[in-house]
Amino acid sequence: MELTEALAKLAELEKKLYAYQAADSALYLDGTTVAPRDTAEGRGVALGVLAGERHKLFSAPETGELLDFLWERRGELDQLRRRQVEELRRSYAQLTRIPAEEYMEYAMLTNEADDLWHRAKEKSDFELFRPVLEKLVAFNIKFAGYYDASKAPYDALLNEYERGVDMAYLDSFFATLRQRIVPLLHAVMAKEPPDDSFLRRRYPLEAQRRFSDYLMEVLELDRNHCAIGETEHPYTLEFNNKDVRITTNYNENDVGFSMYSVIHEGGHAKYELDICDEVQYTCLSGGVSMGVHESQSRFYENLIGRSLPFIRAIFPKMKEFFPEQLAGVTAEQFYRAVNKVQPSLVRTEADELTYCLHIMVRYEIEKQLIGGTLEVKDVPETWNRLYQEYLGVDVPDDKRGCLQDSHWSGGAFGYFPSYALGSAYGAQMLKNMEAETDVWGPVSRGDLSVVSGWLREKVHKFGGLLEPADVVKNACGQFDPTVFADYLEKKYSALYGL
Amino acid sequence: MELTEALAKLAELEKKLYAYQAADSALYLDGTTVAPRDTAEGRGVALGVLAGERHKLFSAPETGELLDFLWERRGELDQLRRRQVEELRRSYAQLTRIPAEEYMEYAMLTNEADDLWHRAKEKSDFELFRPVLEKLVAFNIKFAGYYDASKAPYDALLNEYERGVDMAYLDSFFATLRQRIVPLLHAVMAKEPPDDSFLRRRYPLEAQRRFSDYLMEVLELDRNHCAIGETEHPYTLEFNNKDVRITTNYNENDVGFSMYSVIHEGGHAKYELDICDEVQYTCLSGGVSMGVHESQSRFYENLIGRSLPFIRAIFPKMKEFFPEQLAGVTAEQFYRAVNKVQPSLVRTEADELTYCLHIMVRYEIEKQLIGGTLEVKDVPETWNRLYQEYLGVDVPDDKRGCLQDSHWSGGAFGYFPSYALGSAYGAQMLKNMEAETDVWGPVSRGDLSVVSGWLREKVHKFGGLLEPADVVKNACGQFDPTVFADYLEKKYSALYGL
Repeated sequence: MELTEALAKLAELEKKLYAYQAADSALYLDGTTVAPRDTAEGRGVALGVLAGERHKLFSAPETGELLDFLWERRGELDQLRRRQVEELRRSYAQLTRIPAEEYMEYAMLTNEADDLWHRAKEKSDFELFRPVLEKLVAFNIKFAGYYDASKAPYDALLNEYERGVDMAYLDSFFATLRQRIVPLLHAVMAKEPPDDSFLRRRYPLEAQRRFSDYLMEVLELDRNHCAIGETEHPYTLEFNNKDVRITTNYNENDVGFSMYSVIHEGGHAKYELDICDEVQYTCLSGGVSMGVHESQSRFYENLIGRSLPFIRAIFPKMKEFFPEQLAGVTAEQFYRAVNKVQPSLVRTEADELTYCLHIMVRYEIEKQLIGGTLEVKDVPETWNRLYQEYLGVDVPDDKRGCLQDSHWSGGAFGYFPSYALGSAYGAQMLKNMEAETDVWGPVSRGDLSVVSGWLREKVHKFGGLLEPADVVKNACGQFDPTVFADYLEKKYSALYGL
Repeated sequence: MELTEALAKLAELEKKLYAYQAADSALYLDGTTVAPRDTAEGRGVALGVLAGERHKLFSAPETGELLDFLWERRGELDQLRRRQVEELRRSYAQLTRIPAEEYMEYAMLTNEADDLWHRAKEKSDFELFRPVLEKLVAFNIKFAGYYDASKAPYDALLNEYERGVDMAYLDSFFATLRQRIVPLLHAVMAKEPPDDSFLRRRYPLEAQRRFSDYLMEVLELDRNHCAIGETEHPYTLEFNNKDVRITTNYNENDVGFSMYSVIHEGGHAKYELDICDEVQYTCLSGGVSMGVHESQSRFYENLIGRSLPFIRAIFPKMKEFFPEQLAGVTAEQFYRAVNKVQPSLVRTEADELTYCLHIMVRYEIEKQLIGGTLEVKDVPETWNRLYQEYLGVDVPDDKRGCLQDSHWSGGAFGYFPSYALGSAYGAQMLKNMEAETDVWGPVSRGDLSVVSGWLREKVHKFGGLLEPADVVKNACGQFDPTVFADYLEKKYSALYGL
């Protein structure tokens, strides 16, 4: 085989993988936004077939041969091609270690699990979900061995979501956070809570929709390349760097829910839209890792979106959308309300301070489940015990307990820590950004271009061209979770007058 | 090969073809409804790859061998399998006669043509569209030879949309209609036109959206299986009989436009939703032919939707949606307004009487273009001349002239006659329905279940299980276009007091 021919084949393979991904995305987007309720079956048939075709294409021996050939000649490849081959070989090795039957069985299992989880959550009936969760755990333990048999199973899974991260790393990371967060939380809870009752007045959906449009404008999201849809559990989906979709969910009696969903998903979207053209339609398109992706969404949501300068900047306009609801409320009061600390049951509704404690509960449970020291049947009890221990709250039912998140039903064990890592990465990025430029002057005028420009250059534009760890290093320097702890301490001490 | 094995392979092939179709549909639906404006490129890449994969799968020699094997054993197959094999063999023969390079080239050409047509229409600039239209015509002439070299090229194309229909058949069909419609039109135009000014008052979009929901309820469209979206050119799309989407386009100053779009597309949707479960995920799902499909959409739109009993039934509710706009308007006045005859420029806005004249213009031009007696460069002039001759109107620009429809840019030459055939089939179905049951009693109470039940049993449920001609025979008996002419004469004589 000539190198030129091999490179043409590589390009063809990448285009095909992109097309299967785009098909999958279009069906998923439709299914979770505008599709009629009782239409999952036909979509499931199509998704199953397409996943099978993609698997067949990617796991074919010729694919392996092509990638090996190119890897041997990697000295002659440019960085873009070399990284593509490196990443594809990694995926190929992982995929081909999973027997095809197991892969298909697992695909069907997650499809079934999603449905069962929805129903179990609705009825708050863990027993309905338990058998399928047991299978999912067993599969993941087995798959972990395929991914990297030299590692403990949970380490192998963690590595899939955030390369280089393992239990030793996370144990130390979470210990640092817990040590700092728990006393801070106790001090905060001893103080008078701010009034946030005005957040729960009636905010008509139409006005909230127009407010979303305004927020997307403030975030400088180009509507010709980024649309917003409505769904149950908000997410961001990218087809490519010219076509990104965010979603939100409007709650008529909680203006903050959609507001911070839009800003959070907007952060994901900004990342995707900023990725360079060269990596499009290849395996290097898209954000580099889950942790880095969450660092961006949570950067916009919390570090910017829940900051006083930002709220001061948008509040006059916000009052135009909701004149009656916010009558007599000041920007400062709004700032205090959306930063109210309240240990609670549901992760996605948690404040910035207690959020990581929610993650730690999941981390502990996953570690034990995949490590084999916790049985699935004991998950609810352990969950409830840890919520009491970490957050001091009693879990009244599994719906608001261990059934609240969709991750496990999708087969994602090891994903949750990315949220906490992302928060910590973000705080360090902000510190570096502040050292280099005037962040808060422009933000206080509603101008996010300085923030976005910095993140574009340090994080976004690379897509998968660099290793995740190198992107983190690029933007954070040597990772240091105490920066995040310092940030929280400073913010909440000021807010609560500690 | 064992028969059982071959049948399993057939089922697998059908599922894969369904999955590629579903992927294509999801991308198309997204692209025409919610996708941001500048995102066509990435969708084009994905659609191109998927079309190529589908082509490779379907045109593979093994597919041909499988279908030949099953055809030889057709005596042992049930009707469902036999029809599947028959239809798939027909498509296979057609597809494999087109060289793969030409097929791909054509796919790219129609993709490009769609974009050029949009831009040419916007600027009313035929010259922009001309070169690509020339290529499309040349391709279709060549493809016609692949489809059936024994036929005249246009006959071969017509046969693709409505099997068994050719120019001799259509010449006679259109001659019959023209002979009856033209004098009727002259008589109508000599009369005082009804007032329809109230249709063009300001009808707010939100109220129109709620009105659409109501219309879908009247049409008995199950919203758990049928959603409505908004697009530029309304269409219906089916994933399967449990998942159908209609689309509409709201015009704030024309309440009739979306109203009759919804009822028209609703007719298509009812057909798809009624198709039996057995044919799902096979090539026999979906309506049997374009003519039969249009017979159903135009049945609901015109024969029912523009009838006095139907309008009387829904008018009180309609006044609730539009109390000011329809103040002082009676159901009878509304009925006369939406049936106002007015020779006009745009097919999709034509009244029931002049509609077929619009089709005849396109039929004449296609016949000559594909027959080689008309050059593409002369299309605008011929179009304008025929509009003057058939409809007595002067075409002021190509935007409202030969650039108005998207069919040619999509490569569809021979489709237009289906609309006229569908109208004629429908009139004959109605006549038979009236002979068998009380149609208008229930309709005048807003109850369409009798109409829908009849159509379900005579037309819808079969999907592609029967030949198109057999479905027509089943519902119409011996096809007789004078029934449609009689219907028009009766309706418009009464309306205009002839």
